[in-house]
Amino acid sequence: MNDKSPERAGSPHRYPIRIYFEDTDAGGVVYHASYLRFAERARTEAMRDAGLPHSAMQDRHGLLFVVRRIEIDYLRPARLDALLTVETSTLAIGGASVTLRQTMFDEAGAVVADLKVLLVCIAQDSLRATRIPDPFRAVLAPPDGAVGEPGMRGMSAERG
Amino acid sequence: MNDKSPERAGSPHRYPIRIYFEDTDAGGVVYHASYLRFAERARTEAMRDAGLPHSAMQDRHGLLFVVRRIEIDYLRPARLDALLTVETSTLAIGGASVTLRQTMFDEAGAVVADLKVLLVCIAQDSLRATRIPDPFRAVLAPPDGAVGEPGMRGMSAERG
Amino acid sequence: MNDKSPERAGSPHRYPIRIYFEDTDAGGVVYHASYLRFAERARTEAMRDAGLPHSAMQDRHGLLFVVRRIEIDYLRPARLDALLTVETSTLAIGGASVTLRQTMFDEAGAVVADLKVLLVCIAQDSLRATRIPDPFRAVLAPPDGAVGEPGMRGMSAERG
Amino acid sequence: MNDKSPERAGSPHRYPIRIYFEDTDAGGVVYHASYLRFAERARTEAMRDAGLPHSAMQDRHGLLFVVRRIEIDYLRPARLDALLTVETSTLAIGGASVTLRQTMFDEAGAVVADLKVLLVCIAQDSLRATRIPDPFRAVLAPPDGAVGEPGMRGMSAERG
Repeated sequence: MNDKSPERAGSPHRYPIRIYFEDTDAGGVVYHASYLRFAERARTEAMRDAGLPHSAMQDRHGLLFVVRRIEIDYLRPARLDALLTVETSTLAIGGASVTLRQTMFDEAGAVVADLKVLLVCIAQDSLRATRIPDPFRAVLAPPDGAVGEPGMRGMSAERG
Repeated sequence: MNDKSPERAGSPHRYPIRIYFEDTDAGGVVYHASYLRFAERARTEAMRDAGLPHSAMQDRHGLLFVVRRIEIDYLRPARLDALLTVETSTLAIGGASVTLRQTMFDEAGAVVADLKVLLVCIAQDSLRATRIPDPFRAVLAPPDGAVGEPGMRGMSAERG
Repeated sequence: MNDKSPERAGSPHRYPIRIYFEDTDAGGVVYHASYLRFAERARTEAMRDAGLPHSAMQDRHGLLFVVRRIEIDYLRPARLDALLTVETSTLAIGGASVTLRQTMFDEAGAVVADLKVLLVCIAQDSLRATRIPDPFRAVLAPPDGAVGEPGMRGMSAERG
Repeated sequence: MNDKSPERAGSPHRYPIRIYFEDTDAGGVVYHASYLRFAERARTEAMRDAGLPHSAMQDRHGLLFVVRRIEIDYLRPARLDALLTVETSTLAIGGASVTLRQTMFDEAGAVVADLKVLLVCIAQDSLRATRIPDPFRAVLAPPDGAVGEPGMRGMSAERG
């Protein structure tokens, strides 16, 4: 896993997903909504590997990331027993929002699905959009400090 | 639906379930965990048809039913596009618990899956087992007033 | 349901979705991937109401629609027990593809989620993109015959 | 994981499950049907760690395990971010069937859910119950060779 094979600063976070019957449908391939579940797992682990699990954000800051928009392209089918790799990186960060790119590869390195995910940071009590706290910005932001601009930097810079 | 075709007092509540790709797996049939989702829908609608949606229990009483135990037999596979019928009835009612039977039939009337579901009524704040309130007992209990004993009576509103 | 309240030609197909525990997450609202399941149900029922269930396409033509791309905006949270309405209409139709718009409203008429779904028609054996057969084109196409152009026409049977 | 920390012969197979939003519901805890998905993952990995993935059974033997019956007790709620451990072991093996016990523990070692799962081996073409092939029997059977009798032996490869 990631914490055993430290990555270059700025490289995307990688997370493995094995395909089980629960993920497939009668078409014999992964059900299209399952990829959104895989993406949630991968970005949660990206944050956890950076030392920032959900509980840190909720308990310390009273904040929560919610999904505001997703674009997903389905490029190849994946089948039972396949082992996918999800690469998660930051495309852009704004005051209260962050756009991630999450690309899923099969074992041959071909792209199976490609997502852009816009997350908004909200306060748990008011549900209002709220500035992303600094420790999270440091983890999420592209390392060159670009703000609000698309980029393709990794999400795990600190752990280099 | 139920409210359009009123049922005999004591007859099981009936609820239709159409099978979509989301419910199936790469074996070409309904994924085994999907039946638990169907059962939740059917018993929620049985309560709603009896005038007792979740919100009534939560808002008026601060209570919630939680699943304590399920036994499920998988008897025949069901396929994409199939229309199942879920019959829900009360097997037994105790102080803080109720055991339902939920049987799922295909269009030919054959049993696809058969469940026994033990629900416990808990307080939302303390999470402690709590006596089922009377309006819910009236809906859930077998009409002959048997308590804590297995039975095969229906769960529909007419039996109030 | 749709077949009981016939719609104007060209109006979007409407399908109701009740929210159960299965659809929600620990944030207290509908889990974001659940909306893709709801959209699948609604467009399947739109086709079924038009006399074209999956089996017609698979058995008669050896064809299948697969999801090629989805864009989804999450505009408001929906909660347990809510009753959503999914409106499905055709935005554009090409030779082997169709773009649907699926908008989900809450009981107050506010938009909860808004999707654009690009489907591609493929042959079940070769998995190759294949021209959508005429009976399906008649159901899917905007009534003014626009082809490959965005539009906001409904998907209901009356427009055949 | 299992292959990195070899286990005593006969000890249960252990598999970790992290809880994500996808697994939870509006009650704030893991949705009850999610445990059946976790159990599928864990027993699939138990077979894979023993060198017998799905594909071995399907491609070499034309066989498939299907779930015939499940009993599940829900003993404690599990929450977002929790790390569960699933222990999988064989209770009994018959000609065409095997009964597994799958117990899920939280990080404090308390039992969250406890399952008995009856699987039947069927031929993919005829769907008929078929004798479990010897390589799978060796992996699944309790080491003392008891057949058709309940037991509490592990399911790991070392017991071959």
